[in-house]
Amino acid sequence: MSDAPTTAAPLTDFSRLCVHTITTKPWTIEKAAQHFAQAGVKGITVWRDTLAGKNIRQTGQMLLDEGLSIVSLCRGGFFPHLKETGRQAAIDDNRRAIDEAAELGAPHVVLVCGAAVGQPLAESRKQIRDGIAALLPQAEAAGVKLAIEPLHPMYADNRSAVNTLGQANDMAEELNSPFVGVAVDVYHLWWDPTLEQEIYRCGKNGHLLAFHICDWRTPTVDLLNDRGLMGEGCIDLRQIRGWVEATGFSGFNEVEIFSNRLWAGDQHEFLENIKKAYLEHS
Amino acid sequence: MSDAPTTAAPLTDFSRLCVHTITTKPWTIEKAAQHFAQAGVKGITVWRDTLAGKNIRQTGQMLLDEGLSIVSLCRGGFFPHLKETGRQAAIDDNRRAIDEAAELGAPHVVLVCGAAVGQPLAESRKQIRDGIAALLPQAEAAGVKLAIEPLHPMYADNRSAVNTLGQANDMAEELNSPFVGVAVDVYHLWWDPTLEQEIYRCGKNGHLLAFHICDWRTPTVDLLNDRGLMGEGCIDLRQIRGWVEATGFSGFNEVEIFSNRLWAGDQHEFLENIKKAYLEHS
Repeated sequence: MSDAPTTAAPLTDFSRLCVHTITTKPWTIEKAAQHFAQAGVKGITVWRDTLAGKNIRQTGQMLLDEGLSIVSLCRGGFFPHLKETGRQAAIDDNRRAIDEAAELGAPHVVLVCGAAVGQPLAESRKQIRDGIAALLPQAEAAGVKLAIEPLHPMYADNRSAVNTLGQANDMAEELNSPFVGVAVDVYHLWWDPTLEQEIYRCGKNGHLLAFHICDWRTPTVDLLNDRGLMGEGCIDLRQIRGWVEATGFSGFNEVEIFSNRLWAGDQHEFLENIKKAYLEHS
Repeated sequence: MSDAPTTAAPLTDFSRLCVHTITTKPWTIEKAAQHFAQAGVKGITVWRDTLAGKNIRQTGQMLLDEGLSIVSLCRGGFFPHLKETGRQAAIDDNRRAIDEAAELGAPHVVLVCGAAVGQPLAESRKQIRDGIAALLPQAEAAGVKLAIEPLHPMYADNRSAVNTLGQANDMAEELNSPFVGVAVDVYHLWWDPTLEQEIYRCGKNGHLLAFHICDWRTPTVDLLNDRGLMGEGCIDLRQIRGWVEATGFSGFNEVEIFSNRLWAGDQHEFLENIKKAYLEHS
């Protein structure tokens, strides 16, 4: 919130480029790791579906052997449920996610917090806070942080009742633990008129754990799987990255793109386009 | 913001039921007026497309002759453009909308404020404020108010850079004119954790000009034209109507539904379903 210009300078190398496994969804984690490393990508965020049936500790070692930094594990969350049994099952699943992150070597688990159709948003929000609070002793014991990711308001029905960075900041402040922070994703937050001040607040609190990038396409034809590659849409990525870096954040720029269109194409070509877009538009 | 319960009591009659012409899009304005009146609907909000090529004064008289209250004219707005010529064309079009509202006998024009891909949101927001300010003398002369409608953040790319009620309230306060107010639409605002306090603020300012209802479906398959009938989705309509009525608002509950699915069906049946849903779920 200084008077200094906060638009970031263009990125000139891939030292802070991380790609989410979901971004190149057709690839197994082994293929993703190999191709990311060959392409010069330095970080990987692992989605839990890619770990099914695998020895997670060995998988983590494989990623390190490829020279990749393990940036985070996606995802825990989905705390709200109408019934207590559902809420308990969610907490149990989040306990497994924390264990998996520890075995993999990921410093934090990203939380898509959830929402339950059929109960007030305020109740879902309370269940999210209570769910995270219940996990804190285990998170601390495992040395794994929990990153609350506010999701776009178009997901408030059933994916997340945390829909602004202000809310996520409020919740992280209230939980007041060194094992709770926030993940900032431009897709979810770019529209928010309070974004600059909330990024500043998040950073000042020491809560800014992750920064996710992609773009918003016009028109967007699918609410979930029509994200754009950086530069394909209207998000002012350098402005937002400037605000993030002004807080002192020096972590990875994580490319997280869900796109039926881009998943349908050649993934090697897509990865090259990600690198190009990273330098030109991010 | 009192401690009294603010959830509204069920509606028991149609004295405050208004339907937008876009809701029954397949009908001409003459058919809509006739069928609304026959069904006991008391108010109509007119979309400008239904007036094309018509004598607007005579059309307004026709609506009154059917016993309908003319609740508002939809819509003006779309102020932001990259070029000055585009911004001027938008202002000219809004001047026509004000004239049309005066001829029709509508007390206000609803503004879908617009947004321009290719310029910062902050610039679009400034152009919106400047555009409305430029219209104020004419609005005052015509006795027609302008209602800023905040739109859901999923429309921030090209439909509106005003995406929260807080923003609309800020803008209305800044413009500080008896001819500027706000339209509250549950579809756009239901997710907002600050909604109760912003409705209270809007009402206290005397800015709450209109209240639009429908529902949010899960899943939503189209960003624009997949709204639900009241009760088909997750919006807590009585809670929000309670907040609105707690401000002293006693205007119409306007049913505004864009739905390819519902437009494809029999519109008489749809209108009966609207009446049923109005009593049971609104």
